[in-house]
Amino acid sequence: MESSFLQIQKIFIGPQKPSPSLQSIVELARQKRVPVVSSRKEILERMARGGVHQDVVAILKEALYPYADLEQILTLKKREEKRLILILDSIQDPQNFGSLIRTALGCGVHGIIIPKDRAVGITPAVTKASAGAVAHLLLARVVNLAATIDKLKEEGFWVFGAAGEAKDLIYDLDLTTDVAIVIGSEGKGIRPLVRKKCDQLFSIPMKGPISSFNASVSGGMILYEVMRQRHMKEGLPSEASAKGGLASEALAKEEGSKG
Amino acid sequence: MESSFLQIQKIFIGPQKPSPSLQSIVELARQKRVPVVSSRKEILERMARGGVHQDVVAILKEALYPYADLEQILTLKKREEKRLILILDSIQDPQNFGSLIRTALGCGVHGIIIPKDRAVGITPAVTKASAGAVAHLLLARVVNLAATIDKLKEEGFWVFGAAGEAKDLIYDLDLTTDVAIVIGSEGKGIRPLVRKKCDQLFSIPMKGPISSFNASVSGGMILYEVMRQRHMKEGLPSEASAKGGLASEALAKEEGSKG
Repeated sequence: MESSFLQIQKIFIGPQKPSPSLQSIVELARQKRVPVVSSRKEILERMARGGVHQDVVAILKEALYPYADLEQILTLKKREEKRLILILDSIQDPQNFGSLIRTALGCGVHGIIIPKDRAVGITPAVTKASAGAVAHLLLARVVNLAATIDKLKEEGFWVFGAAGEAKDLIYDLDLTTDVAIVIGSEGKGIRPLVRKKCDQLFSIPMKGPISSFNASVSGGMILYEVMRQRHMKEGLPSEASAKGGLASEALAKEEGSKG
Repeated sequence: MESSFLQIQKIFIGPQKPSPSLQSIVELARQKRVPVVSSRKEILERMARGGVHQDVVAILKEALYPYADLEQILTLKKREEKRLILILDSIQDPQNFGSLIRTALGCGVHGIIIPKDRAVGITPAVTKASAGAVAHLLLARVVNLAATIDKLKEEGFWVFGAAGEAKDLIYDLDLTTDVAIVIGSEGKGIRPLVRKKCDQLFSIPMKGPISSFNASVSGGMILYEVMRQRHMKEGLPSEASAKGGLASEALAKEEGSKG
């Protein structure tokens, strides 16, 4: 997979003196010969269609997202690491979908699987919410998620499904083997047929008078737990310890594609 | 604190047969004598101003958010639990702010502290993103966050600040004592003066070519880790184990105010 589907045509920035992070975008654009145009705030706002734009808007060249095959994800065996696949069953909200992709990349997910006809695809809103992470992850669309889960099981994966009513808690899971995590849509959760295919359902304990966490937040908690358990078992890879991250909302660095 | 600042004037629902979760909203509205009006999709969309509305829009009575005092938060000692305070330093994005409030409530945070002049307040967008959780948490605005942190330390709190460049990892922290977590704004992180007041800075390990997690996702990971450590040490409260949660995006249940 090439990250080239995210080719930038032109960049618009605000009229003020650029902040250091914006300045680094401008410099990178100059190196890559992408035109940078200084514009009035109202124009940026119109282009961002009411979204938060942080003084910079990029116009992308139209290109189709290069979906991966399931086979590509399954053969992607990174060094001696155990595999980690995220299955998103019918996520509808582009914000949550994009945010989950970004989190997945940061937590070492090797590939994401979504159902072909029931979920949001890779739209510009998803790309933005993912902070560019879509370009660095293998993402496959499959026709039959239940059949795909069967195939994953044959391949030796444990398939865990997140379900609010499950008695087993996330603390009880062993997430250090080859693992696929299934997260359902907002409101409805995992569809019954998909849910039945999971090896085990689990929930995250919750306090107080709320009935759920936001989908992208609970996804973050689950993937954090996978990462934590693997770090505890296998030790921290030098890569991760060298660049702990949290300065939120910066743009994903374009350090090259993963696929 | 009363949750009554979120009084509903009228509820508009879509023209289709209501889903089970929407049906329970309609029934609750009838019990509480709140008028429910069936409307065309375009009208709901206009009222939601482009936001996701899931076939229901509520019109709230105008009311000021009842901010708490720091003292109220500090005196709120719930049974034998160790205290947990979340400090949000200059969070600008209403989505992230609301999502962090919702997550905080679900993870047992006792109070949230924000700086008076540098952050988004409790706007309708924040209320919606919090799925109603703002009504159930003590939230204090303070003039001087650095001085507030000094006060928390005097009160026996350990103050941990999330910072991407920190060498100490979240795994290394003991989060089972009285703890205050500081999370900074998107892009800029915690302000230098506030950062200097923290007892310890920490980061979340991160893999792959991204430079950060989304602010509300990293907040979720941190609060999950607090909850996990406390459950491991103190055991699961029966409340939490009885209602593990994850069916995402349902409305927060109105089970009464916490304050």
